[in-house]
Amino acid sequence: MPLTGNALKNLRKLGNKKFRDQQDRFLIEGVRLLQEAVESDFEILEAYCTEEFLRDPAAEPLVQKLKKKARTLEQASARSLAAISDTVSPQGVVAVLARRKVDAVKLLKSTEAESIVVALDSVTDPGNLGSIVRTCDWFGVNGVLIGEKSVDLYNPKVIRATMGGLFHLAIAENVNLPSALSRAREQGYSVYVTDLKGEAHFDQLHYARKSVLVFGNEAWGVSDDLKALADTRIAIRRYGAAESLNVGVACGVVLSALHRLTNE
Amino acid sequence: MPLTGNALKNLRKLGNKKFRDQQDRFLIEGVRLLQEAVESDFEILEAYCTEEFLRDPAAEPLVQKLKKKARTLEQASARSLAAISDTVSPQGVVAVLARRKVDAVKLLKSTEAESIVVALDSVTDPGNLGSIVRTCDWFGVNGVLIGEKSVDLYNPKVIRATMGGLFHLAIAENVNLPSALSRAREQGYSVYVTDLKGEAHFDQLHYARKSVLVFGNEAWGVSDDLKALADTRIAIRRYGAAESLNVGVACGVVLSALHRLTNE
Repeated sequence: MPLTGNALKNLRKLGNKKFRDQQDRFLIEGVRLLQEAVESDFEILEAYCTEEFLRDPAAEPLVQKLKKKARTLEQASARSLAAISDTVSPQGVVAVLARRKVDAVKLLKSTEAESIVVALDSVTDPGNLGSIVRTCDWFGVNGVLIGEKSVDLYNPKVIRATMGGLFHLAIAENVNLPSALSRAREQGYSVYVTDLKGEAHFDQLHYARKSVLVFGNEAWGVSDDLKALADTRIAIRRYGAAESLNVGVACGVVLSALHRLTNE
Repeated sequence: MPLTGNALKNLRKLGNKKFRDQQDRFLIEGVRLLQEAVESDFEILEAYCTEEFLRDPAAEPLVQKLKKKARTLEQASARSLAAISDTVSPQGVVAVLARRKVDAVKLLKSTEAESIVVALDSVTDPGNLGSIVRTCDWFGVNGVLIGEKSVDLYNPKVIRATMGGLFHLAIAENVNLPSALSRAREQGYSVYVTDLKGEAHFDQLHYARKSVLVFGNEAWGVSDDLKALADTRIAIRRYGAAESLNVGVACGVVLSALHRLTNE
């Protein structure tokens, strides 16, 4: 069945957050993300690929997995896939996935003795959110809590920048952070809020075995109500003249120190 | 003198690397960057602002400095400034600056007893290059060497992402890195190359008091000829499933460790 006008229109609409929210589904594209998706526990509702892709021997293993895992796998013209693509060089394969709902309360109830959770308060740049998820994936965090005012996790630019991290991590969205941080403390977590004026130097601490790290908005940092819920406000020492660090970079710097300083 | 068709055309052309190279000049826009520019040693060749901007009492200190420092300051319509703007909400002020040439050899000849230099091999994403410059600015590095195959430092997206770092740091462009790294070693620097397969863990080293840190391309890392010039190949330990870290994040993580491990 070819990709008809209406189906194509619906796929294009998935570029829009409002429509993604209504439909509880999102679009991914390209070999790399599709490979991650077939290995993940995300449900693949629809997959589309070009004739050329179907015939490419290198694509054969992925096509086989899609045949098993996707509810439908249909052929589509390169032209129609290019029309829904967010990238300059579409790779001839896209899929629609069901949004996965991760519950923040359950995530925090994990019985692990050691756990790192990253909470994001109003991170609004898609590249930053994607980069943070990727960084969290590298440093093996146990979960990510995305606050209500952050950019949408399923924004195509965010998905691309996660480099697959979206499929590896437990990520709760639209989280009421004041409530979640209070809950985290009840569950034995210590809450560390990054703050340019923080009193504790991030690499001279002993981090708790269960830690929540809170990062904030690109322009104004973490909001005051969340700062009030912190056990410790941490700062990254500045040696030069910059006014601030990029939030994704700050996340990597703190996670790298936390690993060292928890295991000491 | 209003901004005529031809002058406007020339300003628009500065969005193009070829033209920037021919003219040895580049364009910046917005209050924040202009404020950095007037305090820097960059030469301001031309400045343009809207009538509204000239009348804004909050802009008065910047306008005064521009009057002193810019060779010309002219009024232009909001419409013409919007036409050359790379941003969604132009702020009514732009300037053309002379490119500053920083010589890599001189930069490495610095007589400082302690020095950190960051070298970039084929960093191609504008956001990454900008973020790295900003991070280098935060961590007070002494100089940045940008290799021949990297994205242009004066790309508008790069400039914006440096958040002023462009004006605070000594940055050499189009550097022949094999030659520069050999020179650095002659000058007493130790060369640390980041490498996913590096044998040294980045936060268990004692860094030399004069260090060059080399970061590579987003997809394939540092090239083999540069790896061969390394004193040490360093890796950032991975705890999770991600294939790699973003290069800007890696830069922050290593710089933060280097400061701690040089001063111990």
